[in-house]
Amino acid sequence: MLSDEHFMKQALVQAQQAFDAGEVPVGAVVVINNRIIARGYNQVEQLNDPTAHAEMIALTAAFSFLGAKYLPDAALYVTVEPCLMCAGAIYWSKLGKVVWGTDDEKNGHQRSTGAQSPFHPKAVIRKGVLAAEAAELMKQFFRERR
Amino acid sequence: MLSDEHFMKQALVQAQQAFDAGEVPVGAVVVINNRIIARGYNQVEQLNDPTAHAEMIALTAAFSFLGAKYLPDAALYVTVEPCLMCAGAIYWSKLGKVVWGTDDEKNGHQRSTGAQSPFHPKAVIRKGVLAAEAAELMKQFFRERR
Repeated sequence: MLSDEHFMKQALVQAQQAFDAGEVPVGAVVVINNRIIARGYNQVEQLNDPTAHAEMIALTAAFSFLGAKYLPDAALYVTVEPCLMCAGAIYWSKLGKVVWGTDDEKNGHQRSTGAQSPFHPKAVIRKGVLAAEAAELMKQFFRERR
Repeated sequence: MLSDEHFMKQALVQAQQAFDAGEVPVGAVVVINNRIIARGYNQVEQLNDPTAHAEMIALTAAFSFLGAKYLPDAALYVTVEPCLMCAGAIYWSKLGKVVWGTDDEKNGHQRSTGAQSPFHPKAVIRKGVLAAEAAELMKQFFRERR
């Protein structure tokens, strides 16, 4: 079994792609059976669509690849804490596992939902994986923008 | 000025389209300056994508039509209370106004976010518009499914 850190590194590669494209650097991958089946990075500016978050793009690619609308056997790795919208999408996808890197104090879902988890009751949730790397990429992005 | 009821009737036409396609009957329209610029109905089954809610489809059509990723001058009319995902999408869109019909006690965002509104602080929110019609369509759908 490959580690959560292994797959988060691949999500960070996606986040770097977002960074290079001038997008807020968030990346995601979807994994089934130790294999990446879908990738996504934030494309809000490129697609002119504020819902084009890394998670939404990776999930839509996963549904399309699998021809399935539920992903109980899949894990989503995303570099930054999902927002409310993405937390809702994760819920609807019935993802078996969700792993994120750094928390997002401004736009993360935890701020809105508080103690009540918005995820599927059976979902395994892990956070803080390679959090420093994900946070550093975000900091660098916003530093250069100022 | 055309009324909220007028535009909600158009959202109900969309919901009926979802119904006729065997989808959970939810419909939405986006309005700017008294004119409908985008429409959407639930297409979760057709697109095999649990994020293909009426609101997401109508909003993505609106971004595309306007070439803009924020909609402060627009109003979204949707027949059923937005879920957590759609509430998040509405937040990111900076919609000026949101109107829905019937509450959704199971999957509506109010259940998860409680007293704290997930919408943009300046957004005008109205609910209960043609709620009985929207609720009846939902009831009829689930009655026929049993």
